Amino acid sequence: MTTTTKIETRYPDCDRMGIVHHAVYPVWYEMARMDFFSELGFSFEDMNKLGVNPAMVDLHLQYKAPATYPQTLYITVRGGEYAPKKLELLYETKTEDGTVINTCRSFHIWTGPDNRSYNLEENLPEIYSKIRAACE
Amino acid sequence: MTTTTKIETRYPDCDRMGIVHHAVYPVWYEMARMDFFSELGFSFEDMNKLGVNPAMVDLHLQYKAPATYPQTLYITVRGGEYAPKKLELLYETKTEDGTVINTCRSFHIWTGPDNRSYNLEENLPEIYSKIRAACE
Amino acid sequence: MTTTTKIETRYPDCDRMGIVHHAVYPVWYEMARMDFFSELGFSFEDMNKLGVNPAMVDLHLQYKAPATYPQTLYITVRGGEYAPKKLELLYETKTEDGTVINTCRSFHIWTGPDNRSYNLEENLPEIYSKIRAACE
Amino acid sequence: MTTTTKIETRYPDCDRMGIVHHAVYPVWYEMARMDFFSELGFSFEDMNKLGVNPAMVDLHLQYKAPATYPQTLYITVRGGEYAPKKLELLYETKTEDGTVINTCRSFHIWTGPDNRSYNLEENLPEIYSKIRAACE
Repeated sequence: MTTTTKIETRYPDCDRMGIVHHAVYPVWYEMARMDFFSELGFSFEDMNKLGVNPAMVDLHLQYKAPATYPQTLYITVRGGEYAPKKLELLYETKTEDGTVINTCRSFHIWTGPDNRSYNLEENLPEIYSKIRAACE
Repeated sequence: MTTTTKIETRYPDCDRMGIVHHAVYPVWYEMARMDFFSELGFSFEDMNKLGVNPAMVDLHLQYKAPATYPQTLYITVRGGEYAPKKLELLYETKTEDGTVINTCRSFHIWTGPDNRSYNLEENLPEIYSKIRAACE
Repeated sequence: MTTTTKIETRYPDCDRMGIVHHAVYPVWYEMARMDFFSELGFSFEDMNKLGVNPAMVDLHLQYKAPATYPQTLYITVRGGEYAPKKLELLYETKTEDGTVINTCRSFHIWTGPDNRSYNLEENLPEIYSKIRAACE
Repeated sequence: MTTTTKIETRYPDCDRMGIVHHAVYPVWYEMARMDFFSELGFSFEDMNKLGVNPAMVDLHLQYKAPATYPQTLYITVRGGEYAPKKLELLYETKTEDGTVINTCRSFHIWTGPDNRSYNLEENLPEIYSKIRAACE
């Protein structure tokens, strides 16, 4: 499963050099990640109701080319490594002509209502099998 | 009572014209407001414990001159009109040489633990008298 | 002329109380303003080429009800007072069921390539007549 | 050489879970990086005058514990690998009691006035020797 999120850059995303500031990408990747989880059948509202959260533990970005304003971009997300308590996601940001300008890998630990590590396979087996299906 | 908060501009505060973006000022005024409440003896932690919040209902900014990066600025805050359920605050942002570059007026309704309007004079008379003293 | 801009709130727009932080609205109003100018026939790219800019001098927001994440909002923009060197814009943010949650008024001075006040009627009469038409 | 930058968290840095949002850290690391370069003798103003820029090509963050508001944090920066055209920097964010809550590694390519790769050793040998000294 791969999802695609359309991004329209915003004026204040650009710094004084006229290019999108590097701290904007994590916000975009979060939006794309939310779309991925919704498509998978485990939306933010679902997580919120259950008190379950994919806590960010590792975020790795590679800046390959600049973006500017105004510009339309597309972010693809796909699942990477997964286990009952953790999940890796892989991202690409592309321009309209398909040039990759940024790539990202995020790594998450599932946390439960007590804010501690949470075994998704044991506690939410249906959702865990959706993740398994999405990552294969 | 007038408080002064020192602000160091940050690189991404500036837009592609090299000047601080207009949406950054409300964030600075909030920082200055927090300092004003701390100095007055009613800090964010105090409010948080009590579930009391000065909800923003009206914010009016005037942009008189641009700021840039790097630059040191000073924001002064003083109390305006007050009543048991509401409060007005008045702000000025100045450069190091005292030039006023921005002014602001914010208007707040006190809300209580139930997120509804809250009478500070009745519920927290000691704090209300501190506000009265600070505003006169 | 009235334009409508669709906004999808983002996760980090919300503060720890779970409501959209008040400093996010100016960014949304700027997006809506850009759409208004594009629709009028004077896009950001046009302004950029000419070195003309509607510099923000006054911004007045009224917070009527909170927004949250995820939520879809609609911002309408219409012209207010106008003159050869200045422009007022009026905004409303509504929920999907039409409830107004925020209103705004911004006031702009046109600046030219030298960053000084700019007479739009004299320098760009075609664009000035578009603004006149849009504001009436 | 190791520099330390003091950070006071801001209210809107926290998300609805009451913890600092993960996209805030890159902004803090940029502030800490600017302090590192200033201390080294190659400030942002110097770079700006020369048209030289440490373009971000790779950013890797590790989230070890949450931060909240209000909280005082300290970010240390030290040099990593370096070469005439590139530079690695290493960061740690600590609480007041010394607990590491976040670590980061950024990797930069030096760009010159034409926005292309720039050989610092050839073009600015004095600054390059300062970097060499700071990284050893």
